[in-house]
Amino acid sequence: MASTREPSAARRYAAWLADFEDTPGAAPGPAPTPPGSDLVYFAGGLPDPDLFPVEPLADAYAGAIRERSAVALQYGPPMGALPLRELIAERLAGRGIHVGPNEVLVTSGSFQGLNVVGRVLLDDGDLIAVEAPTFMGAFGAWTTHRPRYVTVTVDSEGMEVDALEESLRQSEDRPRFVYVLPTFQNPSGVTLNLERRQRLLEIAERYDLLLVEDDPYGELWFDAGAPPPPPIRALPGAERRVIYLGSFSKILAPGIRLGFAVAEPAVLRRLTKAKFGSDMHTDNVTQYAVVRLCRSRDFDLEAHVDAMRAAYRERRDAMLDALEARFPSDARWTRPTGGFFIWCDLPGDVSAQTLLGAARAEGVNFVPGDDFYPGGAGGRSSIRLSYSNVSPRRIEQGVDRLARALQRVR
Amino acid sequence: MASTREPSAARRYAAWLADFEDTPGAAPGPAPTPPGSDLVYFAGGLPDPDLFPVEPLADAYAGAIRERSAVALQYGPPMGALPLRELIAERLAGRGIHVGPNEVLVTSGSFQGLNVVGRVLLDDGDLIAVEAPTFMGAFGAWTTHRPRYVTVTVDSEGMEVDALEESLRQSEDRPRFVYVLPTFQNPSGVTLNLERRQRLLEIAERYDLLLVEDDPYGELWFDAGAPPPPPIRALPGAERRVIYLGSFSKILAPGIRLGFAVAEPAVLRRLTKAKFGSDMHTDNVTQYAVVRLCRSRDFDLEAHVDAMRAAYRERRDAMLDALEARFPSDARWTRPTGGFFIWCDLPGDVSAQTLLGAARAEGVNFVPGDDFYPGGAGGRSSIRLSYSNVSPRRIEQGVDRLARALQRVR
Repeated sequence: MASTREPSAARRYAAWLADFEDTPGAAPGPAPTPPGSDLVYFAGGLPDPDLFPVEPLADAYAGAIRERSAVALQYGPPMGALPLRELIAERLAGRGIHVGPNEVLVTSGSFQGLNVVGRVLLDDGDLIAVEAPTFMGAFGAWTTHRPRYVTVTVDSEGMEVDALEESLRQSEDRPRFVYVLPTFQNPSGVTLNLERRQRLLEIAERYDLLLVEDDPYGELWFDAGAPPPPPIRALPGAERRVIYLGSFSKILAPGIRLGFAVAEPAVLRRLTKAKFGSDMHTDNVTQYAVVRLCRSRDFDLEAHVDAMRAAYRERRDAMLDALEARFPSDARWTRPTGGFFIWCDLPGDVSAQTLLGAARAEGVNFVPGDDFYPGGAGGRSSIRLSYSNVSPRRIEQGVDRLARALQRVR
Repeated sequence: MASTREPSAARRYAAWLADFEDTPGAAPGPAPTPPGSDLVYFAGGLPDPDLFPVEPLADAYAGAIRERSAVALQYGPPMGALPLRELIAERLAGRGIHVGPNEVLVTSGSFQGLNVVGRVLLDDGDLIAVEAPTFMGAFGAWTTHRPRYVTVTVDSEGMEVDALEESLRQSEDRPRFVYVLPTFQNPSGVTLNLERRQRLLEIAERYDLLLVEDDPYGELWFDAGAPPPPPIRALPGAERRVIYLGSFSKILAPGIRLGFAVAEPAVLRRLTKAKFGSDMHTDNVTQYAVVRLCRSRDFDLEAHVDAMRAAYRERRDAMLDALEARFPSDARWTRPTGGFFIWCDLPGDVSAQTLLGAARAEGVNFVPGDDFYPGGAGGRSSIRLSYSNVSPRRIEQGVDRLARALQRVR
């Protein structure tokens, strides 16, 4: 319910804000952990600040400003700086995505990519197919369009694509696109297997659908001998079916708002127009600094990503070990092979919201499962645990606290 | 006309893109000047790169990353970093705008402020009142809403507010807001006088309208003894009527995408929600670097702004002198007391588009007047000249070329 002091509020704001819950003092977005808090933070998908390449970044920013000031400090093209688009295209080739720089749009984080995709593809009230559960932030990126959602269940091998096809067969109400996080999915941590990736692409072809492939975690695999299947965008025939979104947030640092979209030229030009209307272009200092960092002889990005894989693997292991040791045997959780997240179905139909209250009292948090379902319609007894921002020792402590809280509310 | 290879294009994209002119190869946004070109660039409102505080910026970025890495490189709040919002509030007090940091939203350039304001206030097809001419970029920021425009003429004292009231009296079709650039207006260079600022605020009160005050040039006055009138937001009673947009682009550098919006709390919370949906938050490194720069003992921001005033005043003088010396006596132009732009009405009903062809052949450019009117309905025989990016000597040369081109097409 809107609770505002404005007498004329009803006609003052755009229609999508009609159900805006205006709580004076509260700001949208994740609540920060109070400094010095003993809380074990399993909630947000925050990278560990100890893994940020601080010195190389400081040098890269200063160098880019000193040596490229005339371009880095000036207005730039909406599509993004060419040297960065070239760098992105080169790195994508390493994952099997072969594109030129003119098929790459630089965005202010891949989150902006979601927003821009929505602006290009959605009219008011359009339908979007999403995994259930899916990345909750996407709902915020599309909220001005008041979309409807059709959900597709996820199992340990990712989206159940047969269920998607079944729902497409049964209804003429076509989604404008299918939103999918195939690799180390947020929130479940699961990965769509190769066969399903191919099937999903076939379904997109058959029903003339676009796929929006969101891949912020795709490089963070834990077993060097068994990387995940290639992105859907890398499969034959995907060029015209997939808009691919990538990010530097998880391999460098998320305070640097830098991501990108890959699409066929006709789509990319429309995305670029929407991007221009959003913020003209992404911060140019940021773009040139990241180019300089990644091209620097003193910084090995691939070695840095390897170090992050090792660090997050250790945390994943710590969390799985702790869950095994401390959680009741009738709880179920995923075993991610990369990324930041474990999804846990609570035993005995315990409410995640109820557990959260008890968990906070014990000094640990998480995100309740219903946050990851459109309209909160699901995940009532599930939780997302993020191990990315917590040391292995603290992970053990946090799971211990969580197990105690679970025992209390059960 | 859409010219796309997509057979299903008609239903693939959002409705606002129906008339998107898809020109393969062309990217939206300003076309860059080819390197090494002899072109005298009077087109875009680009600051002079020689005025960028390169060394202080390089130090500030490196210092912010080294000393504040845990916050500057991490995700941050959608509203913006508190130290930056405090800094902005302090600087605004110097211009008579007294707000706390919770009335300030950090944006990725003030251009994003325009876009976010549109998302909060506009439904599809809503009416916006704008000055004629006005900042053309705003059309791009609002284009997804397909707004209609009602225009209010501008004379040497700014928007003709009586004409606004007249049009409000004559129609029940209320604009959602009035978009106004009261100080050193882009594109005309004129400044709304104090009496009209007060009248505009009274009209807003009487007709229950919001004013969107866009003020990117407001600090760049040329006569220290006669600064412009205070922003409308600084007038008594403006708190609930004005959304004020400001920017660091013109006083620091536009490659740094950093601006802000000021609004009463109920409006600001809605703007913040729309901002979050756009890109989560503005680049955090950028925010902490600008705080560090402005708080540094080695950098005096106010002295830096003073130096920019002097530099741009010299260019304004050079352009006015050159126009006086070389342009025909039946041409008319504005005499800005700050900012980047002169607006010139061509003599003898010469078409600005025709002149542009001849001017480019002579080695000079500008923006034709019709770009600054909704739907191009006006300004046919007017041009915007920007002196900000050209040295005084080159300004003389450019005006000389322009005068020759004018003679040729007349």
